Amino acid sequence: MQDLTTTSVTTAVLEQMQTTQDPRLREIMASLVRHLHDFARDVKLTPEEWLTAIGFLTRTGQACTPARQEFILLSDVLGLSALVNLLHDATAPELGTTSSLLGPFYRQDAPEVPLGGSIAARAKGPELLLYGQVTDTAGKPVPGALVQLWQTDATGWYDLQIEGGAETDMRGNVRCDAEGRYHVRTLRPLGYSIPLDGPVGELVRRQNRHGCRPAHIHFLIGAPGYRELVTALYLGDDPHIDSDTVFGVSAALVVNPQDHDPQSPMPGIPAVRYDFRLALATDTSSSRVGADPRQVLAA
Amino acid sequence: MQDLTTTSVTTAVLEQMQTTQDPRLREIMASLVRHLHDFARDVKLTPEEWLTAIGFLTRTGQACTPARQEFILLSDVLGLSALVNLLHDATAPELGTTSSLLGPFYRQDAPEVPLGGSIAARAKGPELLLYGQVTDTAGKPVPGALVQLWQTDATGWYDLQIEGGAETDMRGNVRCDAEGRYHVRTLRPLGYSIPLDGPVGELVRRQNRHGCRPAHIHFLIGAPGYRELVTALYLGDDPHIDSDTVFGVSAALVVNPQDHDPQSPMPGIPAVRYDFRLALATDTSSSRVGADPRQVLAA
Repeated sequence: MQDLTTTSVTTAVLEQMQTTQDPRLREIMASLVRHLHDFARDVKLTPEEWLTAIGFLTRTGQACTPARQEFILLSDVLGLSALVNLLHDATAPELGTTSSLLGPFYRQDAPEVPLGGSIAARAKGPELLLYGQVTDTAGKPVPGALVQLWQTDATGWYDLQIEGGAETDMRGNVRCDAEGRYHVRTLRPLGYSIPLDGPVGELVRRQNRHGCRPAHIHFLIGAPGYRELVTALYLGDDPHIDSDTVFGVSAALVVNPQDHDPQSPMPGIPAVRYDFRLALATDTSSSRVGADPRQVLAA
Repeated sequence: MQDLTTTSVTTAVLEQMQTTQDPRLREIMASLVRHLHDFARDVKLTPEEWLTAIGFLTRTGQACTPARQEFILLSDVLGLSALVNLLHDATAPELGTTSSLLGPFYRQDAPEVPLGGSIAARAKGPELLLYGQVTDTAGKPVPGALVQLWQTDATGWYDLQIEGGAETDMRGNVRCDAEGRYHVRTLRPLGYSIPLDGPVGELVRRQNRHGCRPAHIHFLIGAPGYRELVTALYLGDDPHIDSDTVFGVSAALVVNPQDHDPQSPMPGIPAVRYDFRLALATDTSSSRVGADPRQVLAA
């Protein structure tokens, strides 16, 4: 037996984990230990700092409820969620629409909305029309694709943040027509601050970050045989369009509503046309970086 | 604005964190983001794996109670606690006794035990005598050093694991004499498995690790002007002496009780002599890698 050193301890951990049978778990944990130890050595992490981190992680876990996923929020503000999304996009054999974060406000049980209907059930504000076509990467229509969308109301709140999520609003599922076309009415969303009253908020404030996301509309689009697309459209005139605190914005996802769009199927409403391209499915793995928080807690 | 890529997203995060005023927090978070992103890129972390990790971290946080610190346990089995200890030892200007993990069973309010007394209040089993001297690194005695020690009973349980920690046992604080000498009676500890009924246990089992720690006695030794020493002595004949699941064993901390020690102050009891060397304090930072779990939750 030898005395462990600040370098040999890493080797000792890797050796002890060699008994892992699942090759992918073995690979992930070995890489994690190497990078985690490199991090601690690089910054010469002190016992007090380590204990602060333990306390932070503990509070983050304890802040999680069926209505709130504080660890996803942490991953978001560290850019890890965006990176995992981008890594997933890179595995597609062909380039579909750029993905973006699913975020913590997705729900599986949103109401169906007919073509031309509105996802605003109770909320009031300036209307917006979203329309376009869902195609494959060659531009061929995907008939009957399901477009799930959700967003804040015109005051910057998701339904789940109002009265404990008592009422469903500003979310809906639209079925495209036989040409893959959709049009749906909504309200103009407002940008908002991520929840800053928890441990992640403490961190973001200590980093002097504004903690804001630019106004956006979430989309989850699927059709049999195609890779599920998780993305969002961002309003170009939002003051935080260049500094999204969770790194979800890509240039290709920035839109600017047009007051007079001659091609709009519902003239008179400011319109955003966006055509989504779905890549073919290569496997059964989900592209969702994020989940209904109720699922995470139940896992 | 540009589309983020799997490499430029890291730059974007580092830029947004540049506003952090505290230079140490800025340094730590920048290094963490670099290493965390490198890890995700190295293993090409998938959305499903990421979500599994989010669920694991959430359950780890929610398993923490005043009597249990599951995140410290996670840090322990990943060798991070041992590494932070070793990094701290390396900052000492002179070499004291090798440190070891404080672990999750330390309590601040252990009873005082006189020299020659026993820390076994109720527990039964084969007795052991611990004796020796606390000195500085040059061998000069440290008068009145306080030796806090705690361990399992002879069946492998800490008091805190029995009846919800209703009774304090197998822990005590001994004050050295004017020559820095101590002697105290205890029971021969038994090795044990870390708690395997939580998320960390799931991981350890999936790694086919035995999850055991060799039999040991914890020490926390302090005296004004000296760096607090957190260490442990390990019994050399334990079957897991070479494969401690939390990487706390160093060759210098392995002891073998002697049935007939002519120098023992209490002949007739198997004895372990160990002299502890304290390094001079250089600052006020604690060397405790670990804490009373009640403190972490209250932080």
